[in-house]
Amino acid sequence: MSKIFWNGGTLLSPVPPAMVSCGTLEKPNIITIGWTGICNTKPPMTYISVRPERYSYNIIKESGEFVINLTTSALVKKADFCGVKTGAKVDKFKSCGFHAVAAQKVSAPLIEESPLSLECVVKQIIPLGSHDMFLAEIVGADIDERYIDSKGKLNLQQAGLAAYSHGEYFALGRKLGDFGFSVRKKKKGKK
Amino acid sequence: MSKIFWNGGTLLSPVPPAMVSCGTLEKPNIITIGWTGICNTKPPMTYISVRPERYSYNIIKESGEFVINLTTSALVKKADFCGVKTGAKVDKFKSCGFHAVAAQKVSAPLIEESPLSLECVVKQIIPLGSHDMFLAEIVGADIDERYIDSKGKLNLQQAGLAAYSHGEYFALGRKLGDFGFSVRKKKKGKK
Repeated sequence: MSKIFWNGGTLLSPVPPAMVSCGTLEKPNIITIGWTGICNTKPPMTYISVRPERYSYNIIKESGEFVINLTTSALVKKADFCGVKTGAKVDKFKSCGFHAVAAQKVSAPLIEESPLSLECVVKQIIPLGSHDMFLAEIVGADIDERYIDSKGKLNLQQAGLAAYSHGEYFALGRKLGDFGFSVRKKKKGKK
Repeated sequence: MSKIFWNGGTLLSPVPPAMVSCGTLEKPNIITIGWTGICNTKPPMTYISVRPERYSYNIIKESGEFVINLTTSALVKKADFCGVKTGAKVDKFKSCGFHAVAAQKVSAPLIEESPLSLECVVKQIIPLGSHDMFLAEIVGADIDERYIDSKGKLNLQQAGLAAYSHGEYFALGRKLGDFGFSVRKKKKGKK
């Protein structure tokens, strides 16, 4: 297999096309962000990287709070819209037909239509060049009840999440396995 | 739509099930990491969050280098294996039938079988609790030539990447659109 060398680029993928809501219930905004991920398990921590020239940048910097709303395949066109338009000119909740709902622990609102929202409190801001990285603790999760079964288990697969890879959006497709499947012994006599 | 509130958790998804190679060509290791993402565009920067008790932690801390190798659906069982086993007991390259190949800019080797590898140099280590976050610059990318067309364009979709979501691995499925498709005008007279 022959390799071609390119200079460094942001080619890690897939990443989550997350809709980040910020501001207040009265004046909410949304910015779609692919530069996000989990960076700690205990306490649960995430980050979003935002260009200082973006409209949401100062809102998040001043409030110290935001909400990450996961994007499904059905919502991906609206997520794309929230990534290319600016809240300085467009009311994105109104344009997308989204409903802003009060969060439990932060003043930034949730997007009701998202299956899962993570309430985040900024702990540190790290300037890196084009983007500033907002490191944040995840202080709560708001989950559409239809994805939690009678035993209290979250069935996130049923939400139909979307992924972002090298400028393209994809539906999550075929399930390939679950964590640890490579070393798990199969139960005898069962499928 | 009714929401159920949970305490904070690491429920952001999908994330990349990245195979991170480290060490040297002579003594390479692999650790699979979902806690990674892009955090800056210029210069291109990424991070990996690693528990200090993991075998790869000291290797990466001491060398200040690692390589992120993307995982395809075909490689996902091996990626899972590299996430649950420890390099202290297992030669993961050998067990997986992977080949370690010299990188261009770092001493950590690539996994030849991965379609795309990102060579990374650590810039900062941030302890966050269970994990330490290694912030790194992406100094090079090694791409399987079969995914670069005659015009020099990268067709990453053809590689068949895998995603990780809430403990499960998925193939990327149906393409839903590309960045900006929500506001792009359709060309008249063309499909």
